[in-house]
Amino acid sequence: MDTSFIAQEVARLRANTPLVHCIINSVVTGFTANVLLASGAAPAMVDCAGEAGPFARVASALLINVGTPSIEQRAATFEAVQSAREAGTPWVLDPVGVGAALPVRTQECATLIGLRPTVIRGNASEILTLAGISEGGRGMESADSVEVAQEAARSLAQSSGAVVAVSGPVDYLTDGQREFSVANGSTFFTQVTGSGCALGTLMAAFQAGSADLLLSAVAANVFYTVAGEKAATQAAGPGSFAVALLDNLCALSPEEALKAARVS
Amino acid sequence: MDTSFIAQEVARLRANTPLVHCIINSVVTGFTANVLLASGAAPAMVDCAGEAGPFARVASALLINVGTPSIEQRAATFEAVQSAREAGTPWVLDPVGVGAALPVRTQECATLIGLRPTVIRGNASEILTLAGISEGGRGMESADSVEVAQEAARSLAQSSGAVVAVSGPVDYLTDGQREFSVANGSTFFTQVTGSGCALGTLMAAFQAGSADLLLSAVAANVFYTVAGEKAATQAAGPGSFAVALLDNLCALSPEEALKAARVS
Amino acid sequence: MDTSFIAQEVARLRANTPLVHCIINSVVTGFTANVLLASGAAPAMVDCAGEAGPFARVASALLINVGTPSIEQRAATFEAVQSAREAGTPWVLDPVGVGAALPVRTQECATLIGLRPTVIRGNASEILTLAGISEGGRGMESADSVEVAQEAARSLAQSSGAVVAVSGPVDYLTDGQREFSVANGSTFFTQVTGSGCALGTLMAAFQAGSADLLLSAVAANVFYTVAGEKAATQAAGPGSFAVALLDNLCALSPEEALKAARVS
Repeated sequence: MDTSFIAQEVARLRANTPLVHCIINSVVTGFTANVLLASGAAPAMVDCAGEAGPFARVASALLINVGTPSIEQRAATFEAVQSAREAGTPWVLDPVGVGAALPVRTQECATLIGLRPTVIRGNASEILTLAGISEGGRGMESADSVEVAQEAARSLAQSSGAVVAVSGPVDYLTDGQREFSVANGSTFFTQVTGSGCALGTLMAAFQAGSADLLLSAVAANVFYTVAGEKAATQAAGPGSFAVALLDNLCALSPEEALKAARVS
Repeated sequence: MDTSFIAQEVARLRANTPLVHCIINSVVTGFTANVLLASGAAPAMVDCAGEAGPFARVASALLINVGTPSIEQRAATFEAVQSAREAGTPWVLDPVGVGAALPVRTQECATLIGLRPTVIRGNASEILTLAGISEGGRGMESADSVEVAQEAARSLAQSSGAVVAVSGPVDYLTDGQREFSVANGSTFFTQVTGSGCALGTLMAAFQAGSADLLLSAVAANVFYTVAGEKAATQAAGPGSFAVALLDNLCALSPEEALKAARVS
Repeated sequence: MDTSFIAQEVARLRANTPLVHCIINSVVTGFTANVLLASGAAPAMVDCAGEAGPFARVASALLINVGTPSIEQRAATFEAVQSAREAGTPWVLDPVGVGAALPVRTQECATLIGLRPTVIRGNASEILTLAGISEGGRGMESADSVEVAQEAARSLAQSSGAVVAVSGPVDYLTDGQREFSVANGSTFFTQVTGSGCALGTLMAAFQAGSADLLLSAVAANVFYTVAGEKAATQAAGPGSFAVALLDNLCALSPEEALKAARVS
């Protein structure tokens, strides 16, 4: 397989500094903004009703993460998505925690999928829930394996028109026709809050100006998990891992990301 | 005194990975989630009205921290507490900043204490205020010593039915009959925002499935402050201390926590 | 120029531990609280309507940062500012992201400037926008140079009565008559979210009890950027820079800040 697109996509991100409009849960705002800054994007966490609509018109990409769906943030979400659709701006949906125990976000995501996100990124339980197969994970954590969710991901991609990315020990991405697996990563990711959310924001950054949405999502996934692999070799635990992850996202060159990629 | 329960409680936490539902102030969401993850628990910051009630029914324990009591978070709090009571789930109250200058949370805490939390954790000024003896600290910081608050803690434990934990240079915990002091810790804790809040979330994690609420709270306190002692030896300041704290919470074994405990 | 005030102001901060009331965007609450704690101030993030008014009466200084202007935070802001004005408490306005694409905060800032903040701190695009000369930056980032904004800063200082601080590679501060440039800093600051916001909170801390608002703002700026310079020498990237910044803010002595100052 020709994986040279990985280096090209990382170089494109660094050259363009995309302005990424994020509406994201209150737990991970700071960490995910720092991931975007370290990687070479410009984050803007704009989740106020009356601003989210106008701002999505000028942003390069939009990220909707439903992890803490307050009333005002939900209003901002629909404003922003409408603007993104009108402007032809790519937008990513991160359905954090959808399932029977969290009904507000679950209903919100059902509506959002009908508004045609360009990427949907979640863990296996979230993707199975969106596909109508599961009732949800254990809180924010997956109770299912990525392998089990692959069929659901293809089905969801076909019905929604989105690229679907399933995150786990080996990540799986599909547009309903083509499919990729990414084997890079570190178990430390599971011990840092927002590590999945940050991958969603990076996918939004890579979607900006993309010529192939699936390849851009795969490149974002490789870039992030390779940086995590390097960080893990420098870390004494999850605290120092999160710090080293930011350092490595900043330092990682397109060529290094390509060379370390384990994509099939 | 037989302190072997400390090792047993830490081992129990690691074996069970309790799902800890947190409704917590907006300053410390990320840090406290990372403390729970590093320690071996599964955090879920669910503070949206309409979700907090259903979610508290499936969580292993609940933490209510009133540090930024927005209208929506207050509604979520009462939903969650009602579910926890119905389900028999233990819940911890952290009365951040109660006192005359912060009337909304002070009124909220007065109501919450009547709903019978299983643990109340605060600094000396907060405990004195809840017991009706003080008018509050200086902002979020204590203006009183732990020693002065011991009598108030016993009285509050007896009237509320909760374990009461007073945090400071030497921590004090009581159920109104028995009492413990924990002398572990580091002055760096006072220079990291959310370090007290994180202890409250850990107490909730240790309450899940506990056979003795006071011993579980003492074990949480020892585990956290011993990890802080170890972190302090590796830190150049409060920034590197917070990072090392997460690393040490992850690495600390039940036996190490027991061996380093300074409990009386 | 006699710059001995820099050491005096840092020593005064450390001696007084000012209680800094912050109403600040949800992205940077934790980081900015840690910057204040590391520097020697006591942060209190009180942004709940019904509490912000009473609390501003007892605080040493107030910081208003409009980066995520939710409905409830806007109500809290006006409560707090009114109390600060009545009590004669200094207050800092940080107009994060003002401009045509973010109309809610832009309207809010227009009203707030009429309530006479003691300091206004922003990047060049924000200051140009407040002075009516620009339509805003690119999201939260400046699209203009500090040099271009100097005339606007003087004009804004004269019309508003505030000290105006423009942050960038070389910072510029003026009260409309006198002016200072501060050449300390590090490019790492641009890769850490909230690094500008944290400078605003420190300016509030230095304003408390100040005999000369401009000199206090300059001292805050020097103190913060010198700590950043030292941190940059110890950092491998933006993650370790942010950690080292906190360590250096805690360790930096008044004399070291004075010695390293590059003020003109």
